[in-house]
Amino acid sequence: MDAAAADLYPPSRLDAARRAAADAGLDALLLGPGADLRYLTGYPALSTERLTLLVVPADGEATLIVPRLERPAAEAGNAVGVRIVDHDDGTDPYPLVAQAAPGARTVGLSNRMWAEQVLGLRDALPDARQRLAGDVLSGLRIRKSPAEVAALRRAGAAIDAVHERMGEWLRPGRTEQEVAADIAAAMRGTGHVTVDFVIVGSGPNGASPHHGASDRVIGPGDPVVVDIGGSMADGYRSDCTRTYVAGGAPPDDFLAYYDVLEQAQRAAVAAVRPGTSGAEVDAVARDIIAAAGYGPRFLHRTGHGIGLDGHEEPYVVAGSTDPLQAGMAFSIEPGIYVEGRHGARIEDIVVCADDGVERLNTLPTGLVVLS
Amino acid sequence: MDAAAADLYPPSRLDAARRAAADAGLDALLLGPGADLRYLTGYPALSTERLTLLVVPADGEATLIVPRLERPAAEAGNAVGVRIVDHDDGTDPYPLVAQAAPGARTVGLSNRMWAEQVLGLRDALPDARQRLAGDVLSGLRIRKSPAEVAALRRAGAAIDAVHERMGEWLRPGRTEQEVAADIAAAMRGTGHVTVDFVIVGSGPNGASPHHGASDRVIGPGDPVVVDIGGSMADGYRSDCTRTYVAGGAPPDDFLAYYDVLEQAQRAAVAAVRPGTSGAEVDAVARDIIAAAGYGPRFLHRTGHGIGLDGHEEPYVVAGSTDPLQAGMAFSIEPGIYVEGRHGARIEDIVVCADDGVERLNTLPTGLVVLS
Repeated sequence: MDAAAADLYPPSRLDAARRAAADAGLDALLLGPGADLRYLTGYPALSTERLTLLVVPADGEATLIVPRLERPAAEAGNAVGVRIVDHDDGTDPYPLVAQAAPGARTVGLSNRMWAEQVLGLRDALPDARQRLAGDVLSGLRIRKSPAEVAALRRAGAAIDAVHERMGEWLRPGRTEQEVAADIAAAMRGTGHVTVDFVIVGSGPNGASPHHGASDRVIGPGDPVVVDIGGSMADGYRSDCTRTYVAGGAPPDDFLAYYDVLEQAQRAAVAAVRPGTSGAEVDAVARDIIAAAGYGPRFLHRTGHGIGLDGHEEPYVVAGSTDPLQAGMAFSIEPGIYVEGRHGARIEDIVVCADDGVERLNTLPTGLVVLS
Repeated sequence: MDAAAADLYPPSRLDAARRAAADAGLDALLLGPGADLRYLTGYPALSTERLTLLVVPADGEATLIVPRLERPAAEAGNAVGVRIVDHDDGTDPYPLVAQAAPGARTVGLSNRMWAEQVLGLRDALPDARQRLAGDVLSGLRIRKSPAEVAALRRAGAAIDAVHERMGEWLRPGRTEQEVAADIAAAMRGTGHVTVDFVIVGSGPNGASPHHGASDRVIGPGDPVVVDIGGSMADGYRSDCTRTYVAGGAPPDDFLAYYDVLEQAQRAAVAAVRPGTSGAEVDAVARDIIAAAGYGPRFLHRTGHGIGLDGHEEPYVVAGSTDPLQAGMAFSIEPGIYVEGRHGARIEDIVVCADDGVERLNTLPTGLVVLS
């Protein structure tokens, strides 16, 4: 691990995780590939049917169980202070877990561990009660360190650079899929190592918030929702949405709500500060949209946390009443969707700062009409 | 769903799944986003923290539970015969599960469901015993239909077209990451909608089978393992490995084993036919490599099934004694890895045919020296 990686993934996190586990009554954390494992060790393990598991006893040495063929990658990517053991294809790796966490009676599983491993661990540790590690680890991950904020800032700049080039690709006569392929290639060119999603929702497809990209041909004047994100080599993620109009005059009933949406998004961003809650920020956006008569057309929460996962704590949603704290990073992305016609969404990643808010996506939020 | 999609995802599968569940003593299948859900319905659901769940009672109507914002996508992508219900952000979706599978005492969970949903379902259905749906559904998915084989053939041709262009990108003086970015962009250009992995392992990095792509500068004469795969718009996946030498003479100790590896890979492919087992095919490759003195350097099994998942049943590995059947699709990918020096792997996807084997990757397997 080089110096920059050690800054982003300090080895002290293992001890913090042990303390948090003990405080929560967990004897051990059992973490599969994904954000929790990487957060604690720096190792970007692959999710496969082969068992990879970081075992962190609340009071004992951490063990990383890996398939033998991944041992070289694990040794290259792993933090200090973790013992690595491997298992061969065709052998049963689960006895290694009991050896690494002897006597554990309550274990915390990483939230995105696969069911086949959850049930495998249930059989391997039949006396252990299974809970979620996320209840413990999200308390650590939810406030980003300065190095993590810097990583998210780099990811934000990378995805902004892709949005800035949208006019090269988004034109009437092209299909959503053709535009999406160009966007994905450009994301790679700005340092993304995974392309997690490329939503190009033109015309009526824009009314489906999680539309992907279809073979629909974009027409002149179509509003087009473009929501794109991925991960950088250091693991941190981008996510940014802008709504465009491709080559022509947009429909009047679209223009009627775009400014409302922009006002709602900007007001919600401006409402972010330590001490306010996700629910309050959600209400700021929702009230503006509802006051203009579009309340039922805002189909989802206002935002989600982001870091090593694309969606994580905190959520900006009704019921999320915990006070925001400096270092929390999340999206602000209200949308308005008119079924059968079109939709719009504006999304920036922001960080709650000591004295307000920092936008990590810095492009203007006004409607971009591409000629 | 259009005609081609209905051919690839016939609605009759829901009934087949019901029968298989009943035969296995399952009262209901509970399937999260992923291959099982798509196999049964055609719907490519997103994996997120929001609950998406296909509930298939062994004797009753199937229900697809979706987040409200994904309802339009679910309606567009879903098969006939499935009722859709949705839930709003900030509400508890789990009561919908109990309503969709009343009285279920034994449920089958999709193997890759996230732990947070496994434990959520444990709490929502406290009297239901949880097992794995894969034990039931892999029996359906393991033999590909002619339409599925055709889809895998298209995926194979798409990834072969990328390998054919490797000389444009793989040159001494470039980093593995630069080459990987070009490969990923080309994969998009051949119809891949996800790039699942791009391994560019040059020189000593080739000895780590699951190396990704680093900032190492490729040197003249370096052997380079390139293992790439992704998914096409129809959901079916590609996976193909070739080993190259970039601009120069490769080391003698590399040339000493490449021909052994090629011989092992070709012999294992040729051994595939109905009635033989994955273990036997694995042994064919392993025995040739061991006889040449490289046995301990072949660190992994010979292959894995492929379809809607990148790795699925059947596995070509010691202990896999079930007879192969026509329609099974899997990789044949032996490798030899010399720590600190270099490695090589050759991988083709093959389909077990009525009278032998069909290779879905059709490029030559000899060492490719790029000038």
